[in-house]
Amino acid sequence: MLTIEWSATEGWQAPLIKPFGNMSLHPACSSLHYGVQLFEGLKAYRGDDNRLRLFRPMLNMNRMSKSARRACLPTFDHSELLECIRRLVEIDQDWVPHSDSAGLYIRPTFISTEPSLGVKKPGHALLYVILCQAGSYFNNEAEALSLWADPKYTRAWEGGTGDCKMGGNYGCSLLAQYEAVDYGCQQVLWLYGEDHQITEAGTMNIFLHWINEIGEEELATPPLDGIILPGVTRQSILELTRKWNLHIPCQDKNTQLTSRIAKELTDIQYGRIHSDWTFLV
Amino acid sequence: MLTIEWSATEGWQAPLIKPFGNMSLHPACSSLHYGVQLFEGLKAYRGDDNRLRLFRPMLNMNRMSKSARRACLPTFDHSELLECIRRLVEIDQDWVPHSDSAGLYIRPTFISTEPSLGVKKPGHALLYVILCQAGSYFNNEAEALSLWADPKYTRAWEGGTGDCKMGGNYGCSLLAQYEAVDYGCQQVLWLYGEDHQITEAGTMNIFLHWINEIGEEELATPPLDGIILPGVTRQSILELTRKWNLHIPCQDKNTQLTSRIAKELTDIQYGRIHSDWTFLV
Repeated sequence: MLTIEWSATEGWQAPLIKPFGNMSLHPACSSLHYGVQLFEGLKAYRGDDNRLRLFRPMLNMNRMSKSARRACLPTFDHSELLECIRRLVEIDQDWVPHSDSAGLYIRPTFISTEPSLGVKKPGHALLYVILCQAGSYFNNEAEALSLWADPKYTRAWEGGTGDCKMGGNYGCSLLAQYEAVDYGCQQVLWLYGEDHQITEAGTMNIFLHWINEIGEEELATPPLDGIILPGVTRQSILELTRKWNLHIPCQDKNTQLTSRIAKELTDIQYGRIHSDWTFLV
Repeated sequence: MLTIEWSATEGWQAPLIKPFGNMSLHPACSSLHYGVQLFEGLKAYRGDDNRLRLFRPMLNMNRMSKSARRACLPTFDHSELLECIRRLVEIDQDWVPHSDSAGLYIRPTFISTEPSLGVKKPGHALLYVILCQAGSYFNNEAEALSLWADPKYTRAWEGGTGDCKMGGNYGCSLLAQYEAVDYGCQQVLWLYGEDHQITEAGTMNIFLHWINEIGEEELATPPLDGIILPGVTRQSILELTRKWNLHIPCQDKNTQLTSRIAKELTDIQYGRIHSDWTFLV
């Protein structure tokens, strides 16, 4: 794992790559009391050429920085952190699956280690990165997901932290998530406001592919209005489909467009087509 | 410190009181990634009779249980946890200040120790209690506080966790708090909705003592509508003042009522008047 300590008086310390193991934390540290914490998630993919690639990692670095500002944690040099992550993956390269449906999940995490109970800006913090092998997030890979929408719970709101990857956005979602499961669904579809606007699904952005009210085929996703997490996959799908001249006949099962998007993304991620969206390890 | 471990398979383990020290946590545990964490805050007071008293601690136990349900953490026997806390304070009784303006702050904390990155209900958790001496939360004891109100940030919202003492409610408040400080204020006054309703101050409930639109003297506080933290002091002030027949002449500085409330509460807390609101250690 990679660890980098920071303090207000000393600044950033030298990054360390060391064996994975438990961390020693002060019981009062504000990451455990006040949710002063954030994370990112990205993957390393092993291509047919056996090279390892990250997918648009600078978007994660940018978003992590934005989350840090929102959480009153310090910012950092994006390229330097990416280089530390690249080196970590290089060292652990044997863990990257030989598979075109799995990858090595990379979890940058940034927590306050301020050891005092006052609600205040952290004077100490720890940025660390851990890795694990990951396939599909859901068990039912081929099937569609069922979403449970109930306006009783709200994920995020204007003036909150919904557009940052802070821990509090997720802990508050568990209860709704298990209500969804009780009703036979895999995830929550989060609604917002009195008119129940669609915002996000449980742990991901959402797209609607439909024939709209005036008969046009449309791929729609909620705008980044401060309550939506700016997903890397979301942005990539928008950039891909804007380049395509969409004339896809709609069928009973609207899988053609999603298949095309999934193929294009995985072709890039696994290095089957050249793209500046990948970053070689 | 007091620690009590829980797991879904084994249930609650025996409580341990042991020397204060760092904790060993798995880097993936969901209290550090998804804010699956909550806390409480109460004080032990040393009375003129040298006895130690807690103030309405069962209200904290109840609220902690409610927070636990919201966070998908397990509930617990309120009386047993209170007895563990009583025993901890008894052991550390020498730390309770000999002062009628300070106390021993008690911080029950409950975190997920689930060591995996999926966003899911914790299968492992740790409840712990730490102590520290505490005087007034603010430095300027005698002076009034200045509050900064800006609708740009929102503390909590309907369908969220504002009525629970979960960590995420606090981490998201830091940025607004430091904006308040930049403008020369001590705390944020949190507004809500398009009509900027008053909800809470930074880390406390709020009361307005005023002459209302129809000329009546009124002590008002926002209702517990799901976005307000149900404070123990809030509830106690409401219960006290409802018993009093308020006919307090308003002056330029409306300090008579607040002084009377503060005196009544501290008289109870420090055992100067008998009350079933205190719990002897």
